Amino acid sequence: MIITLNLQKNYGMRIVLVGTGNLATRLGMALHAGNIEIAQVFGRSAAAASQLADLLSCPFTSHLEELLPDADLYLMAVSESALPLLLKNERFHHQFLVHTSGSIPMELLSHTTENFGVFYPLQTLSKQKEVNFRNVPICIEANNKVNLETLQELASLISDKVIQIDSNNRKYLHLSAVFVCNFVNHLYAIGGKLLEEKGLDFQLLRPLIAETAEKAALFLPEEVQTGPAVRNNQPIMDLHLQMLEQHPEWQKIYEVISNDIKRFHPPIHTNS
Amino acid sequence: MIITLNLQKNYGMRIVLVGTGNLATRLGMALHAGNIEIAQVFGRSAAAASQLADLLSCPFTSHLEELLPDADLYLMAVSESALPLLLKNERFHHQFLVHTSGSIPMELLSHTTENFGVFYPLQTLSKQKEVNFRNVPICIEANNKVNLETLQELASLISDKVIQIDSNNRKYLHLSAVFVCNFVNHLYAIGGKLLEEKGLDFQLLRPLIAETAEKAALFLPEEVQTGPAVRNNQPIMDLHLQMLEQHPEWQKIYEVISNDIKRFHPPIHTNS
Repeated sequence: MIITLNLQKNYGMRIVLVGTGNLATRLGMALHAGNIEIAQVFGRSAAAASQLADLLSCPFTSHLEELLPDADLYLMAVSESALPLLLKNERFHHQFLVHTSGSIPMELLSHTTENFGVFYPLQTLSKQKEVNFRNVPICIEANNKVNLETLQELASLISDKVIQIDSNNRKYLHLSAVFVCNFVNHLYAIGGKLLEEKGLDFQLLRPLIAETAEKAALFLPEEVQTGPAVRNNQPIMDLHLQMLEQHPEWQKIYEVISNDIKRFHPPIHTNS
Repeated sequence: MIITLNLQKNYGMRIVLVGTGNLATRLGMALHAGNIEIAQVFGRSAAAASQLADLLSCPFTSHLEELLPDADLYLMAVSESALPLLLKNERFHHQFLVHTSGSIPMELLSHTTENFGVFYPLQTLSKQKEVNFRNVPICIEANNKVNLETLQELASLISDKVIQIDSNNRKYLHLSAVFVCNFVNHLYAIGGKLLEEKGLDFQLLRPLIAETAEKAALFLPEEVQTGPAVRNNQPIMDLHLQMLEQHPEWQKIYEVISNDIKRFHPPIHTNS
């Protein structure tokens, strides 16, 4: 019964989606799939806005002066660098504005409007890959109780993991996400390049990548650390550094991470 | 029919498992589950050897002089640092010796015996977590065709991904594995510690960790890189470095990986 009520309430809510990137696309699609109406898509590129509007069965514009003046919520799903400039446009003044960034404090929006909040999905989103939004933690924050409730209801329609979190903690959540997602993905890329140079296929690493992530779903990572650094096996580490001689950047990465693993795990005997 | 023949052949093979660590345990259990007889477990610690022998329903010893003298294969599943010392013991001379290390050249065994090889499972193995060995790539190498065939048959009994790979390429495979597994796991640990300091739960990061790994199963990692560095968003990176001021080691890790992401992805416009 509650779900029905929420659906009805939010179904009547008219949302303008600002942005056409990975986050705007995936978030727009999740809202659309949750029967929440997107009233308009705005994007600087008419082609990108048109493409996303197609997916969301809604109108689009690439001109700020054509922005709907009376939507209930303006979802600013744009990059951290684009946001401040957009906020200067008077079309956004005195609207209910919500940004989607992990690192930008909510208060930035207070210079533009009296009703504002944050709607930050803690997930890596790509146009190429679908994601089950019900599993995506959505971190919300708002300038007052009424707006917070609105965001809570909206978020609950697409995710089972809605958490209220302030700007300061959200900033740390984002920083952690950079380590466990963005940096991790780059280590995958380095692993792939090392194999490529030897004519070996990235495919070989995929079971290892999957298992490493599965372990993190069951244990705390420091409890299941394996490898030469946690065993303090200096000859192997020296060999690896020597093998990386043609890649000084990767040698540096190898060194700083290995040293930090050793710092986390003071030497004890293990033959893992 | 071929499977039956292989089973019979290997069932008759008597294997001594040397080692009681994570790899010895998981490999021993996979062999045992594949109906391959472990004739004896050797471990320096009688307690550890006894525990593993229990799991494998076989005898054990912690004394090298009690090692079975006539097994068909001695599987040296010990750490890279323990192996050279063990090989000096005359019990191993002129036996069929196989080591399980990614980084140790096969030729190391040639000083001890005339029949030797490598049996390297490319996976992170812990006593705490079961793993489906059929998905684990097993990299094999041997000093001659007959021994290679024996290892091929043995590996095929427990895994669907048996690959022949020489010592030099295996060394690079291991190095790649350190990046995509050991280093990745440490980045998970750092992410968790950053949250812990703010009273936030590691659990929040798990959907992100899983999705990042799932993406790597479908795409090449460099094609789906996200985050501040690939967007070349210097203000966010500066903020993150400032937030890490109390953790100079993590600041360094943040810097070297971000710089390498920027090097991989020369700046183009994206609002992902």
